[in-house]
Amino acid sequence: MCELLGMSANVPTDIRFSFTALAKRGGATGPHADGWGISFYEQKGCRNFHDPNPSATSELAALVRNYPIKSKTVIAHVRKANRGRVALENTHPFTRELWGRAWTFAHNGQLKGVKALPLSFFRPIGTTDSEHAFCWILDQLVRKYMDYPPARVLDKEVKRLFGELRKMGVFNALLTDGRSLYASCSKKLTYIQRRAPFGRATLIDAEMQVDFAQETTPDDKVIIIATQPLTHDEVWTVVAPGASLIFRAGEVV
Amino acid sequence: MCELLGMSANVPTDIRFSFTALAKRGGATGPHADGWGISFYEQKGCRNFHDPNPSATSELAALVRNYPIKSKTVIAHVRKANRGRVALENTHPFTRELWGRAWTFAHNGQLKGVKALPLSFFRPIGTTDSEHAFCWILDQLVRKYMDYPPARVLDKEVKRLFGELRKMGVFNALLTDGRSLYASCSKKLTYIQRRAPFGRATLIDAEMQVDFAQETTPDDKVIIIATQPLTHDEVWTVVAPGASLIFRAGEVV
Repeated sequence: MCELLGMSANVPTDIRFSFTALAKRGGATGPHADGWGISFYEQKGCRNFHDPNPSATSELAALVRNYPIKSKTVIAHVRKANRGRVALENTHPFTRELWGRAWTFAHNGQLKGVKALPLSFFRPIGTTDSEHAFCWILDQLVRKYMDYPPARVLDKEVKRLFGELRKMGVFNALLTDGRSLYASCSKKLTYIQRRAPFGRATLIDAEMQVDFAQETTPDDKVIIIATQPLTHDEVWTVVAPGASLIFRAGEVV
Repeated sequence: MCELLGMSANVPTDIRFSFTALAKRGGATGPHADGWGISFYEQKGCRNFHDPNPSATSELAALVRNYPIKSKTVIAHVRKANRGRVALENTHPFTRELWGRAWTFAHNGQLKGVKALPLSFFRPIGTTDSEHAFCWILDQLVRKYMDYPPARVLDKEVKRLFGELRKMGVFNALLTDGRSLYASCSKKLTYIQRRAPFGRATLIDAEMQVDFAQETTPDDKVIIIATQPLTHDEVWTVVAPGASLIFRAGEVV
């Protein structure tokens, strides 16, 4: 098992509060000590931090927790290795360029036989099932569409591909091109939308409380999606097993 | 003008000494204040730090200067923007996956008409001439070879593509797949090989001296390539304008 964290917001939003909880689960309050990674979008650019060391004790994770990077789209992951040795190239999120955008992907679960899926253009650098699945998704997309299809067409196709992968095992996953955040739930995924009127929230994994009313404007909308709820005083929506969800600019599409 | 830094070594080597000098040139001892980036290989994995802020004052650059990441292959770049606005997506080095390896590229110079070169598979995320040139190189390679060609074949083809780009303007560039470090010199590039017997070296841009004899074993070989010499008490080899060089495991191929 690994843990996933994703964010979709309509304004650049600080992820540190949520990342602090996730990072704790990487070796302190959780067993996911085989590396961690986080990808932030900054307009079309994408910033990636990866570390095969436990996030709870990682120097790089400490930097990320203290670095005020604001982003509209974030994917993060803490890893408990099952397939693929503990190494930088096996550390999620994975990133590739497609149609002139950076695509990012993180996965939790195991996919039986996924490596038998043929790949032509996108190839894994590491040895995880997850990266193979990511490459397969992008390969399928580029075979079908030479350029960006309309959002509705792309949304439908990504959901279809997610459905194919869920047939192969456990596919809790987050995928983004920096605009849309696609989520697949096989077993366990939960999300929350924060919007006005904003209140307080308290982390489960760390002694940390935020009053979002102090940090936001009335028009801000932020979706946080995670394997398990990160706060104990907010209402999280449990995603139904077998569902795919799409978020854009802090809204469920 | 921008400044380039590359390293090829036969053992994982600490780049901090050289990076300290380069980072200083990003806004302190040099005018390259429009961002910086560095890519380290760790086996097949590649770690990237990018920042559109001046490296001389960047918090992230301070982390990299203090973080003991050892690598056999490194590319770094400090930027003085001429084409493409100051933004994360325009910050070198650029990275793409080809044939299951991470390829990294950084460039200094301007290429007239490079954006007219057609691209099919690899597309720029940002708006620089440099990223377009990088995508063109990879596009040409993947059209010609579906899988990794033998090193000698690949070396020859990369040199040919570098030659084509040098005809379009100034193309001082570094390209790597983590194994081979390819360098193109239009105008200005210099390198040094450090090997036993190791001595002391003193940076030009910062008050810093290293006694490599304390840091190395007798078998270590390290090539450092840069726009300008980084130390004032070692002999740097000036690369001839119009030349392409290839380094592997700390040796000139």
